[in-house]
Amino acid sequence: MKAIQDVYPDELARCFGCGRLNEHGYRLRTYWSGETTETRFTPQPYHTAVPGFVNGGLLASLVDCAATGTAAGAAYRAEGREMDTLPAHRFVTASLRVDYLRPTPLGPELLVRGRVTSISGRKVIVEVTVSAGSEVTVRGEVVTVEMPESMRFPPAARPPG
Amino acid sequence: MKAIQDVYPDELARCFGCGRLNEHGYRLRTYWSGETTETRFTPQPYHTAVPGFVNGGLLASLVDCAATGTAAGAAYRAEGREMDTLPAHRFVTASLRVDYLRPTPLGPELLVRGRVTSISGRKVIVEVTVSAGSEVTVRGEVVTVEMPESMRFPPAARPPG
Repeated sequence: MKAIQDVYPDELARCFGCGRLNEHGYRLRTYWSGETTETRFTPQPYHTAVPGFVNGGLLASLVDCAATGTAAGAAYRAEGREMDTLPAHRFVTASLRVDYLRPTPLGPELLVRGRVTSISGRKVIVEVTVSAGSEVTVRGEVVTVEMPESMRFPPAARPPG
Repeated sequence: MKAIQDVYPDELARCFGCGRLNEHGYRLRTYWSGETTETRFTPQPYHTAVPGFVNGGLLASLVDCAATGTAAGAAYRAEGREMDTLPAHRFVTASLRVDYLRPTPLGPELLVRGRVTSISGRKVIVEVTVSAGSEVTVRGEVVTVEMPESMRFPPAARPPG
């Protein structure tokens, strides 16, 4: 099965969190599982907050990219078309809220679940949880918007003319 | 001048964002500048969202660690004691809100400013901005709490007995 990020256009697949073409990044991949999405990631030993627990900034990254991926996937579904059809959807984050319910243990694979709570126009709101084993440790809400043209073609990357 | 993170006890100085002893991390350092704090960081070329712009998860990390650092610094100030006196303050994040006001250009050094808006008991709330040049691109609000004993001495690191 294809991940949602697998269909991001090459020039938009460099994200440090979820870009398949970013060799220094986390290369997060988000998959549909029924009406929710799943993104799995096993932190490295150095992704610590304090010894034994996962860094909060990394957890925010997981929430962030799982949400933008979920939003893109949801936009295709809302239009009733396959993810590998054009034009490509690519969402960015307008605002991110992350509640750290309890410390997240460092070691096990983490499961990030995304669920769309609202789609309106170019805006998609996604609720996210992060679980370690059976325990939800983090809850997030992310307001995402379809990427503006100015980011798709920033000055440095804009075609000449 | 010492950074606030410079006085974190060694065992609590492994944070991926701001731990001086985490050789894989960002090693953020937060300094007082009057009543606000300043944390500076220059993203690497691979810290992208899309080409030309800084990754949102990284920006959340900057907000997060600048806030916990600011909170620790503020706790010493509230007690009227120097940062290198004991017991050491170390805060963790209970909740994080990040508003991405506009895309953050990738290239220049970023300036993260922290300002305490509330101290009550073990809880410190910090407002944060991230600026690229003269432009504020990100605004955050972080609820931090003094690190619980269970995190200071997680099972793996707790002294025997």
